[in-house]
Amino acid sequence: MSDTIYSYQQLYQFSLSVFKKMGCSNEDATLATSVLLSADLRGIDSHGIARLVGYVRLWEVGRINPTPNIRVVYETPSTAVVDGDRGLGLVVAPRAMQIAIDKAKQVGSGWVSVKNSNHFGIAGYHAMMALSQDMIGMAMTNASALVAPTYAAEKLLGTNPIAVAVPAGEEAPFVADFATTTAANGKLEIAQRKNEPIPEGWAQDAAGKTSTDAAILKKGGALLPLGSEKEQGSHKGYALGSIVDIFSGVLSGASFGPWAPPFPAYVPIPENMPGEGLGHFLGAMRIDGFRPATDFKSNMDLWLTRFRNAKPIEGQGQVYVAGDIERMIEGARMKNGIPLVAEVVADLTALGTKLNIQL
Amino acid sequence: MSDTIYSYQQLYQFSLSVFKKMGCSNEDATLATSVLLSADLRGIDSHGIARLVGYVRLWEVGRINPTPNIRVVYETPSTAVVDGDRGLGLVVAPRAMQIAIDKAKQVGSGWVSVKNSNHFGIAGYHAMMALSQDMIGMAMTNASALVAPTYAAEKLLGTNPIAVAVPAGEEAPFVADFATTTAANGKLEIAQRKNEPIPEGWAQDAAGKTSTDAAILKKGGALLPLGSEKEQGSHKGYALGSIVDIFSGVLSGASFGPWAPPFPAYVPIPENMPGEGLGHFLGAMRIDGFRPATDFKSNMDLWLTRFRNAKPIEGQGQVYVAGDIERMIEGARMKNGIPLVAEVVADLTALGTKLNIQL
Repeated sequence: MSDTIYSYQQLYQFSLSVFKKMGCSNEDATLATSVLLSADLRGIDSHGIARLVGYVRLWEVGRINPTPNIRVVYETPSTAVVDGDRGLGLVVAPRAMQIAIDKAKQVGSGWVSVKNSNHFGIAGYHAMMALSQDMIGMAMTNASALVAPTYAAEKLLGTNPIAVAVPAGEEAPFVADFATTTAANGKLEIAQRKNEPIPEGWAQDAAGKTSTDAAILKKGGALLPLGSEKEQGSHKGYALGSIVDIFSGVLSGASFGPWAPPFPAYVPIPENMPGEGLGHFLGAMRIDGFRPATDFKSNMDLWLTRFRNAKPIEGQGQVYVAGDIERMIEGARMKNGIPLVAEVVADLTALGTKLNIQL
Repeated sequence: MSDTIYSYQQLYQFSLSVFKKMGCSNEDATLATSVLLSADLRGIDSHGIARLVGYVRLWEVGRINPTPNIRVVYETPSTAVVDGDRGLGLVVAPRAMQIAIDKAKQVGSGWVSVKNSNHFGIAGYHAMMALSQDMIGMAMTNASALVAPTYAAEKLLGTNPIAVAVPAGEEAPFVADFATTTAANGKLEIAQRKNEPIPEGWAQDAAGKTSTDAAILKKGGALLPLGSEKEQGSHKGYALGSIVDIFSGVLSGASFGPWAPPFPAYVPIPENMPGEGLGHFLGAMRIDGFRPATDFKSNMDLWLTRFRNAKPIEGQGQVYVAGDIERMIEGARMKNGIPLVAEVVADLTALGTKLNIQL
């Protein structure tokens, strides 16, 4: 089945209307839409408008508060915990990032751990908020458990992404945004739709053996941490995912580990949750808290140019810096539109019918 | 050839005497020795006393200043750049970490980027300095280029380690400390000594093809980023190594990327270095900058207990948390002594003869 192409503006209006129907203010609906669609623009389709139906379902079962009182509950000049009041992560996270940026303006850096939130879209959006301020931005979030620690036969961590955005001078910035697993769950879903096996190193079965079955997570299997196997360093990916869980969950007072709340509304909330909702961690560091911004940017341009012009392996056209491919996709999709697969179009059409909104 | 066992105290006295012969003050020699030997205690043999001869050689060629004027050259309340004045990284890094801790005491967090330094031993030592202060500690460093970016047929990054230490209550703390590559270079050296091949995914040859030749780095090959291949997420390991290089090198004004200075004194310094010496990045966040420390520690104990008691894969006795194995080795080696391989014993004996110090 071929994809349908929608313009950014079409999807923007649809998403905006949906968030307003949920009861979000115009301001919050606009912000949530910008964050959500930044994923579609950058080619991270699993985190974009394909998830809109999921957010609506969470709202329907009362797990998302469309008019949250997002507030700082604990702080020092450079740190804070924000209570997201069960709001959309798409709204809570950029507000928390703004607090981190404001603190960085005052004292050089700002670090905000967030509790009582929900799925926040792509981590990269929040980290990139720092770029226009001549700051380095960081964003992470925990998520419901799909990943087995090294040597474990059970799922204890989410795919727990990390994003870091670094401004440059003339060159396009460095924007890393990645799950701390070998492959994101969305890649397994694509393989399932195509009835194809997955590469070795992505997942294990219920007993902990490597599996190439794309549906193995439904059979008690788990995703593997970045590194795949112990011999290839999976304990490092496991440590990274742990750090994200601790910074986002334990530091804020959100839930964590196997108790992180699931995104699908039909999956029951874990019993005996040790904290409130999902957690995020946002950070901003002022470049000129370390050295004059012009000096940094000039060196950063040299760094970026050197890596972008690295000698490629034969058969590879080019060596990329983190964020380059997403930037190219964004340029193309803003111009040519965003392709949606048939299942997503069907979901959105049904949602539109239910809420009386034209796709 | 069997290993020789030395007590911690024996190696401590030897190392202390060597650093004093280099002209370090008693205080600096003591600090450098504690940092260096923490690697041997924790089982990270490649970064411990085996490197002592290398530090002496750097001093002999004038690349290490034994009496550095380590000073803050730029700062805000929560950030700083420290100039290490070509000192031992073993001394510069803990001093910079202390500045980060002092800033965290004042404003909640402290972040110090360091230039003009040298190899700093294990990252974990510096991160762990935060634990006794009820702070989360972080440490990273760049290093001379041994690693090829994804799709590249040349070496542009060091093994660029990251360490994160998180305090707990009753439970032993979380201490992650890992190179952002699939395997550390030390593991290739061990395979070379044993004349054994290395596993797939650790290294590539000069053309960029996977290689199991343990000596491939001497033949134009490169280490691979964590993830090994693009399909298994090597672009994520490449991004992590990049972040460490940018935070340690570009942010401080140290050298970076392919221009990071090499550890072996016989390898020429790269031409046209864009900055001064090697770079580090140290950070500290006060737990009670986010929530009451007792609440955090109680949740952290729950986190640690849950992961340590995870269901193991059949044939594996136990699931570990980052730092558990190193802590067990430390306990055993403090009691039973530290085994050194014959090559290291020979190196140290020759060094002792030259400097008139008894091993």
